[in-house]
Amino acid sequence: MLIVQKYGGTSVANAERIKAVAERVSRTAKHDNKVVVVVSAMAGETDKLIGAAHQVAANPSEREMDLLLSSGERVTSALTAMAIEDLGHKAMALTGRQMGIVTDAVHTKAKIEKITAEKANKALNEGYVIVVAGFQGITESEDVTTLGRGGSDLSAVAIAYALNADLCEIYTDVDGVYTADPRIVPEAKKLDKISYEEMLELASLGSKVLQTRSVEFAMKYNVPVVVRSSFNENPGTLVTKEDEEMEKVVVSGIAHDVNQAKVTVMGVPDKPGIAAKLFKGIAGANIVVDMIVQNISGDGRATDISFTVPKTDGKKTLKLTEDIAKELEAKGVDLREDIAKISVVGVGMRTHSGVAAHMFETLAKHGINILAISTSEIKVSCLIDAKYAELAVRVLHDAFELAKAA
Amino acid sequence: MLIVQKYGGTSVANAERIKAVAERVSRTAKHDNKVVVVVSAMAGETDKLIGAAHQVAANPSEREMDLLLSSGERVTSALTAMAIEDLGHKAMALTGRQMGIVTDAVHTKAKIEKITAEKANKALNEGYVIVVAGFQGITESEDVTTLGRGGSDLSAVAIAYALNADLCEIYTDVDGVYTADPRIVPEAKKLDKISYEEMLELASLGSKVLQTRSVEFAMKYNVPVVVRSSFNENPGTLVTKEDEEMEKVVVSGIAHDVNQAKVTVMGVPDKPGIAAKLFKGIAGANIVVDMIVQNISGDGRATDISFTVPKTDGKKTLKLTEDIAKELEAKGVDLREDIAKISVVGVGMRTHSGVAAHMFETLAKHGINILAISTSEIKVSCLIDAKYAELAVRVLHDAFELAKAA
Repeated sequence: MLIVQKYGGTSVANAERIKAVAERVSRTAKHDNKVVVVVSAMAGETDKLIGAAHQVAANPSEREMDLLLSSGERVTSALTAMAIEDLGHKAMALTGRQMGIVTDAVHTKAKIEKITAEKANKALNEGYVIVVAGFQGITESEDVTTLGRGGSDLSAVAIAYALNADLCEIYTDVDGVYTADPRIVPEAKKLDKISYEEMLELASLGSKVLQTRSVEFAMKYNVPVVVRSSFNENPGTLVTKEDEEMEKVVVSGIAHDVNQAKVTVMGVPDKPGIAAKLFKGIAGANIVVDMIVQNISGDGRATDISFTVPKTDGKKTLKLTEDIAKELEAKGVDLREDIAKISVVGVGMRTHSGVAAHMFETLAKHGINILAISTSEIKVSCLIDAKYAELAVRVLHDAFELAKAA
Repeated sequence: MLIVQKYGGTSVANAERIKAVAERVSRTAKHDNKVVVVVSAMAGETDKLIGAAHQVAANPSEREMDLLLSSGERVTSALTAMAIEDLGHKAMALTGRQMGIVTDAVHTKAKIEKITAEKANKALNEGYVIVVAGFQGITESEDVTTLGRGGSDLSAVAIAYALNADLCEIYTDVDGVYTADPRIVPEAKKLDKISYEEMLELASLGSKVLQTRSVEFAMKYNVPVVVRSSFNENPGTLVTKEDEEMEKVVVSGIAHDVNQAKVTVMGVPDKPGIAAKLFKGIAGANIVVDMIVQNISGDGRATDISFTVPKTDGKKTLKLTEDIAKELEAKGVDLREDIAKISVVGVGMRTHSGVAAHMFETLAKHGINILAISTSEIKVSCLIDAKYAELAVRVLHDAFELAKAA
């Protein structure tokens, strides 16, 4: 088997942890497997580098920021390869460039365009364990790029696809995917299996187990992913194609996200093309918009448009939206950062009715006001006051009887 | 003018120092100069990375060590470019690879083969200040290499040559080149000018101001180099071609080196080809041999050969030499690490006699025994007991009246 194993920041936080990772890689390699390891920067390292950048410059350039941040994963890849070699294997560290990870030129949030993997394929055939620096790639013009927060997950899944790996294991500091955050709901259950679609909703809804884009990629190319802990031998959660068994479960999990901010444009003239203008402007600044809610206006002439963006982009979005709002002759723009998004997710919703109603009832019963609603085929999301976030997760986990899940 | 400025580890040790470097670069750029900055890793960073490597592996692979160590300079180059940009200039950080520094594949001690500098030339013409990560290059097969301790000096001089720069300034934490180490001889004088040849002897003899290979390179290609402090505005020492004025000075400086170890092969059969066999074996292990002394044997049948190597290579050399000694049917091998090499250097020696005699007399007068002697056209070196090193430097500085130098 060809197995890709990705180890996150806490799994390679220090020399002891790196040696433990090397032991695990060694055990996998000894079972006649080819192994490609993808590593993150040591926990805290990326934040330290970002801090250093802000110490020397008010507005560090994004191109240089990528060069700076990419060094964290390079360090871990070199150290991890050394540790694996120390256990008697042939090991080779590869940077994003050496792995042939070519991206677009959107610095700090680059998208992978292709992975050539020439050097890796040659080395795998020669019996090397490959250790790739995650989170990074290179543009056609040879500038270093990074893939955004959690980008090492995407590196791992994309490499698994490029090498036609049998399995992509994502090692982290939790045992797998739970029905809710176990820190909030102690009786939350670990799921043995979850569909790509559900994982995607959970990932994008703030469950930090897997980066959203990595799940999208895995789903698109059908890469089997296992999320498991590097601190024990528990089997983890398999993220895979939907099957019949999964459809029987109406709700798989409750997700919450407190890292979004809500922007509302008030009194927008109700004319065609307005929304397009607004969101084109925001997309142009590479800000990812999540929920979009537009209500029909009372008098038929003006309407309110609300949307959510990552909290870190909140102020930037506010400024941008204010400029666009003037152009659109809207009445004003409002930013709210103290919100939470709570979602129930499950592929079973497609064939079962009443999930949304049950959710709204449960929230109402506990005095939690709903600020906005958004639904998809397999999820229902509500924006609420941030202070009710944990309460909402607990009462919904209870209402959908998730503690009884298999 | 096109000016290359190299800043060492203490000059970029923290955010404050990096901002001070940016200010200096900015002043230079504002005088209508094109500036290429070459930076080392922050002081202590390289040793920290080496420490981390030895924590995860008993014998870290040299290829991975180079990948690991190269990250230190990348971090500094990114931060320095950000700081320069923050002062209103266009700035671009370039890695060794992006600078087009191609080396051989001798990891941890690579030699520069060529510098393509395409990206840098283009950016310079577009008005960018370039900030290059020193100490590193890349092999033809795209593996990262490093140039050995102090390699950023070589990066700077080689880049100055490749770009046909008007001047290469090496910024460090001392004011320039002195007649002796001012920490040992407080009355030592700073030299305004020194020839490449003298600087080369001083560099290779343990004066840590400039890395040896960088001086060799500067001499070969006639690159004007200035050594000066990044902590003040003093003019520094110009390293340049020998001129008439320099020849009038018999001795320019006293150098000492306590980082060498002496290996003696005893009772070597006195046959042709023996020395060749011995030193070919040592060169094959990429160990740099400095002094070589062979005495005619007493009975005409066996001889002793002594040589010095960097102390860090001492044990490795001992093992290697023992193997070769067996083959050569020598009587034994001895390693001495508690030695110092003291040298008097000056281009004036070529036309003045009696320097060696004066040196030996001075040492004898102070009870310092000479273990071995080696001379070149412009220097006389003596190996002595390490414990007498500082005394020797002081009495020689006095004997050659260097405190009176211009």
